Amino acid sequence: MPRKKFIEDKLKRIGAEVGDAIAVVIKKDRHEGILMPHHDFSDEDIINIKLKNGYNIGIAIDEDSEIALIKKHKAAEKKVKEIPFDPKKPTISVIGTGGTIACYVDYRTGAVYPATSAQDLAFAVPEVFDICNVKARVAFQLFSENLDVSHWKTLAKEVAKELNSGVHGVVIPHGTDTLGYTSAALSFMLKDLSGPVVLVGAQRSSDRPSSDAAQNLIAAATVAAKSNIGEVVAVMHGEMSDSFDFIHRGTKVRKFHTSRRDTFKTVNDVPIGRVEKTGEIKIDGVYRKASGKTVVDDKMEEDVVMVYSHPGLKPENIPDSKGVVLIGTGLGHVPEKVFPRVKKLIENGSVVVMTSQCIFGRINMNVYSTGRDLLKAGVIPGEDMLPETAFVKLMWSLAHAKKREDVEKLMITNIAGEISERTRSDAFI
Amino acid sequence: MPRKKFIEDKLKRIGAEVGDAIAVVIKKDRHEGILMPHHDFSDEDIINIKLKNGYNIGIAIDEDSEIALIKKHKAAEKKVKEIPFDPKKPTISVIGTGGTIACYVDYRTGAVYPATSAQDLAFAVPEVFDICNVKARVAFQLFSENLDVSHWKTLAKEVAKELNSGVHGVVIPHGTDTLGYTSAALSFMLKDLSGPVVLVGAQRSSDRPSSDAAQNLIAAATVAAKSNIGEVVAVMHGEMSDSFDFIHRGTKVRKFHTSRRDTFKTVNDVPIGRVEKTGEIKIDGVYRKASGKTVVDDKMEEDVVMVYSHPGLKPENIPDSKGVVLIGTGLGHVPEKVFPRVKKLIENGSVVVMTSQCIFGRINMNVYSTGRDLLKAGVIPGEDMLPETAFVKLMWSLAHAKKREDVEKLMITNIAGEISERTRSDAFI
Repeated sequence: MPRKKFIEDKLKRIGAEVGDAIAVVIKKDRHEGILMPHHDFSDEDIINIKLKNGYNIGIAIDEDSEIALIKKHKAAEKKVKEIPFDPKKPTISVIGTGGTIACYVDYRTGAVYPATSAQDLAFAVPEVFDICNVKARVAFQLFSENLDVSHWKTLAKEVAKELNSGVHGVVIPHGTDTLGYTSAALSFMLKDLSGPVVLVGAQRSSDRPSSDAAQNLIAAATVAAKSNIGEVVAVMHGEMSDSFDFIHRGTKVRKFHTSRRDTFKTVNDVPIGRVEKTGEIKIDGVYRKASGKTVVDDKMEEDVVMVYSHPGLKPENIPDSKGVVLIGTGLGHVPEKVFPRVKKLIENGSVVVMTSQCIFGRINMNVYSTGRDLLKAGVIPGEDMLPETAFVKLMWSLAHAKKREDVEKLMITNIAGEISERTRSDAFI
Repeated sequence: MPRKKFIEDKLKRIGAEVGDAIAVVIKKDRHEGILMPHHDFSDEDIINIKLKNGYNIGIAIDEDSEIALIKKHKAAEKKVKEIPFDPKKPTISVIGTGGTIACYVDYRTGAVYPATSAQDLAFAVPEVFDICNVKARVAFQLFSENLDVSHWKTLAKEVAKELNSGVHGVVIPHGTDTLGYTSAALSFMLKDLSGPVVLVGAQRSSDRPSSDAAQNLIAAATVAAKSNIGEVVAVMHGEMSDSFDFIHRGTKVRKFHTSRRDTFKTVNDVPIGRVEKTGEIKIDGVYRKASGKTVVDDKMEEDVVMVYSHPGLKPENIPDSKGVVLIGTGLGHVPEKVFPRVKKLIENGSVVVMTSQCIFGRINMNVYSTGRDLLKAGVIPGEDMLPETAFVKLMWSLAHAKKREDVEKLMITNIAGEISERTRSDAFI
């Protein structure tokens, strides 16, 4: 019998349903708590209970486990706050895509639900409605590592539709894993933004005491509703404490920590600004002001790869493709053994762009002879672009220029804040 | 005519040799300075002159350029300091490998020469001899991006030979590009170190006023001569000013900036310590104390690749190889579309290890169902290892265990300080 069915049967036999208080005894250890729904984040043989201390635990159940019903839950009407429309407040659109932040948690059962409407959002983070009116809907519900060009295109169209319908700004809750790729992609795909487009994520879901979901969403809504930024930005926790959120430029931001809440950093520049706990927006950098009718320009060449250089990199491990972003070492180097392969690719029409696994700093292939050999072969220096941003931009550039020289010109020209003319000395770790 | 020959002829006609004062007129701009040797760092049509202000410039010469001899250089005997052997001082070995730091510059001509002997070193950085006696020689002279397993093996053997011959420690000047790969490799290849093994690099060559070569070399010699560290470490500039150098553990260090001197950072831990400008060594972390007879254990499986995950990653772009280090997103994710390919690789006997492009933090594939699917397929979580370190360690582990379970056990066991049991919250950007 499949494990899930086995557990469902076991619960049914004792008449236990989600929300009921139960006891689970495993090898003499007794755990009491509220039975929570089985969700996608759990293995099949796990039941999740919310303990009295507020923590959720998952318990693996087998044939010898005992489960007892302690108390039936008395169903209560789910109270949804009435969301008033306040004509004096700006209106924003929230477009869900999935990820930790897109979920809200029923504090009774600890269950994780996607927030698909303004009502759900109000249930989860009612403070947002003190700031603005909200139109909310879900574009898709995916772990962000599964997003690709097709999702970026969907999002670009949705964002433009919303902005051109007259909302002041757009908030896009997004999984943090590839948030930086999406923010870069939207930066190139959307032109003449008539309002702020704010990607926001959470590192910890809202059922955890240390969750950053509410603070980030409030800060993102603040930027979308109250700023005149006409760019794609990411709004995320600023430091270990809950003091403020940073406003990062969409083409300059990157995730740097697997679990910390202040995981996103602006690279090779200072953040555009910050949102204080008080709701005040402080601007530190320059930005494009919102104006115009938002235009979607989402042509992308999908046949682009990223290749990480390393000792012993084999020539054949740089695949045939229309675009290659090399993540080289230092100022922009790869082992000499792969030079012939790189030259061959370029001769065959591929466009090859150099970035650095240093992440910070600027490509400079003029310092050493090996770099100059690559330049002569036609490798395009990625300036001070993030490898991830160069990857997205190469997709965009290949679809926007026919001749190789024109692709090259696009790649070394600043289009959406992705290239800084001078790298600030304070923009480092 | 080849450009180099053309310029040589032009110089010969006016009787100008390296060290002479010359004037170069390009389109009415006149540059006066000392003619420097043509070196590998310059293009063929470039001549380098040292200006009066001390800076070197390269000037592209064509048919219309005028070059005039101003003054012949009067040859002076190259003064080499006599290097006394002081029996009261510890002795270190310096093993050159190439890179910016391995070169010393003749301050008269600005020419860059490899430092191949203690005399050369004394000529370049005489302060080292106040600290210790020096045995010096060159193992190879290469740009570090061209190093591979074979060079690591050579180095491991040379280091062990030196340490076992009785020197107190070893300094390895090294190109910065792949210094972190080499320091990780030596950390696994060398056991029971009887003294400190110190990799050191420079971001700026010693003919530049901002060069870090001398300070780093002095700090490295200090650690090699005066510390009782029995580990492979990297000693590099600590911050923007010249205040101190950090002592980084060889398995935890990474280059983070293409040009800044404080480019190396310890990831997921604090540095072992620092070397103050005064020469004082301050210890901040724990380390293995030097003891024993140094043993070389340099078996390595070379068929290992690093693959950077990105939106749209194609299954076929994960190559067949005995070891694969995935540089996934977030806690350790790759797009679901490549799961079948990863499973197939593992079924065919490959060992696949997950690391994160976040760089900081720990892999945790238990949080989301997609991560658990990869774990079930046999993907090994890379704990809090750097992708570069996991790559080197996988080469080493595959050569040191036959059964898959044994390779896995090695990969998740701390062998050379590469895995921290707990990640310190202050060990972040």
